[in-house]
Amino acid sequence: MSRAYKVAVVGATGAVGRQMVACLEERQFPVAELKPLASDRSLGKSVTFKGREIPVEVLTKEAFAGVEIALFSAGGSISKEYGPIAAQAGAVVVDNSSAWRMEPDVPLVVPEVNPQDIALYKNRGIIANPNCSTIQMVVALKPLHDAARIKRVVVSTYQAVSGTGQKAVEELAAQVRALLSSQEVVKKVYPHRIAFNVLPHIDVFLDNGYTKEEMKMVLETKKILGDDSIEVTATAVRVPVFYGHAESVNIETERKLTPEAARELLSKAPGVKVVDNPAKFEYPMPLDAAGQDLTLVGRIREDFSIAHGLNFWVVADNLRKGAATNTVQIAEILIKDYLR
Amino acid sequence: MSRAYKVAVVGATGAVGRQMVACLEERQFPVAELKPLASDRSLGKSVTFKGREIPVEVLTKEAFAGVEIALFSAGGSISKEYGPIAAQAGAVVVDNSSAWRMEPDVPLVVPEVNPQDIALYKNRGIIANPNCSTIQMVVALKPLHDAARIKRVVVSTYQAVSGTGQKAVEELAAQVRALLSSQEVVKKVYPHRIAFNVLPHIDVFLDNGYTKEEMKMVLETKKILGDDSIEVTATAVRVPVFYGHAESVNIETERKLTPEAARELLSKAPGVKVVDNPAKFEYPMPLDAAGQDLTLVGRIREDFSIAHGLNFWVVADNLRKGAATNTVQIAEILIKDYLR
Repeated sequence: MSRAYKVAVVGATGAVGRQMVACLEERQFPVAELKPLASDRSLGKSVTFKGREIPVEVLTKEAFAGVEIALFSAGGSISKEYGPIAAQAGAVVVDNSSAWRMEPDVPLVVPEVNPQDIALYKNRGIIANPNCSTIQMVVALKPLHDAARIKRVVVSTYQAVSGTGQKAVEELAAQVRALLSSQEVVKKVYPHRIAFNVLPHIDVFLDNGYTKEEMKMVLETKKILGDDSIEVTATAVRVPVFYGHAESVNIETERKLTPEAARELLSKAPGVKVVDNPAKFEYPMPLDAAGQDLTLVGRIREDFSIAHGLNFWVVADNLRKGAATNTVQIAEILIKDYLR
Repeated sequence: MSRAYKVAVVGATGAVGRQMVACLEERQFPVAELKPLASDRSLGKSVTFKGREIPVEVLTKEAFAGVEIALFSAGGSISKEYGPIAAQAGAVVVDNSSAWRMEPDVPLVVPEVNPQDIALYKNRGIIANPNCSTIQMVVALKPLHDAARIKRVVVSTYQAVSGTGQKAVEELAAQVRALLSSQEVVKKVYPHRIAFNVLPHIDVFLDNGYTKEEMKMVLETKKILGDDSIEVTATAVRVPVFYGHAESVNIETERKLTPEAARELLSKAPGVKVVDNPAKFEYPMPLDAAGQDLTLVGRIREDFSIAHGLNFWVVADNLRKGAATNTVQIAEILIKDYLR
């Protein structure tokens, strides 16, 4: 019989942290003891796990004693500081921030794509969870890349406000309420109104004109697919949706891949659900993706503008497959294959 | 001194028709007599023009007597039937539907791009106004095409519900109200909820897997730019925004075009306003585009995935530059150069 583990969740009161706790319960992860950690601002709060209220403890250097697996989602600077401390204390860290993703000796893992890279956790005791937009895209790209080699990806995203955090969810709701009742709109989280608007701006702008979010999609895709030759160009856009990121993906492949062949490959791919029956108005939507763990793919069609091209549309729950679920899936492989 | 004209607006009570009347007034089009026409469902309604309420008349075959310019925005079947009748009666028809756009002897015109094609109105008495998404895109493409020859365009759209009509504006508002007050959401205009959701579906689906909206962007772009060699592939998406279409545009050019050169060309291009200062969070948004006539272009950056590529972001008011304003601009050239 398999054993149970002492698991810490760092950033347990955030949008992703709460979802991590929910995922551990839903997926029946063998938790012997759950240790929710957060900053002292969260003191007095608790998280619900298997019907019990577990008080949140303050994150300190000593908090990881006896912890075997530490799931982090408390922002890059916390991960940078406390990730190595947790690893030093003997925990394997699965980190949802961008702090460690591009470190050459830290694996960056999507279980459906590169589960073998989990073995590299031994280097630093840290496994990085990719960016939400990257995860759902590579889940869809992987079977197509294996079959026809993807040369180039042009992607435009339609990202939900929950990706920014719980405060952004509240801001969108408050702005919509204000507009419908002719009250003044308050902006705190985003520099512009997001209600009934679209912002081509996610994360900070870099010197090359791209946002950090866009460059994550470029660089992380290469690392996860283990192929530096895949060229990616991205435009990341925030839309007034609460949950669920959508992506318009255009690919150019080395070998010809018909839409039918792509549909067949995707329908057999792990973690993917093909939703592609336009005649019945069936295509992926944030509304359907939210609250479940699959990556939905549809609108698969030939791109007639090049010899070997396809367009498709990918939607997933950004807090689940894009963050919490992917982290817990990594932990599942970790205990099955390495921490027995 | 220039003279004034008898102008009919067909579909005068619709979202675009009302905007046409407003544009005629705003732009001080020399109207001797305004004749608002609509179906008998609109009997009893009126439109406001220069402070006067003008009763709507029922569209009949006899309605065009003496009309010199007829602006149509009442749907394809009305244009198909009544366009030739109006032309026969001596009016020049400027038609906002898709009915005549791809007829070889009917000009398809964006005044900033191919004003010379207006001369071809003499063939059938009809000038077609392009699809809203196409108009704003070609306004931005034109100066770049002239400078570096565009070989391929990959575009994904973020389209406002007003493109569907006034009923869709009301549906989004009603759905948002219902959701915020835990009432049942009613769907009539779209097959799925649009509030806090995204639909990769605009206009009807065709056998090739594309929507008609997407194919309009492919085919109309070639015709307006007068260059069949430009390849376009499009994904058209409805977002929960009331007014203003946005587009993520990726282009590949024959000759190298730096972002700086593109910015310079666009800043001098007619009808374009460059809004591209990310450091100050300045980029085009539907919120800023709505209610004005310029096409806003920003997020101009090099696409590092190919040798000669650029990404940029284009936003315009879909009811104005995307429909009513473009129609009235065509009429302005018509009276200046042809109907004096």
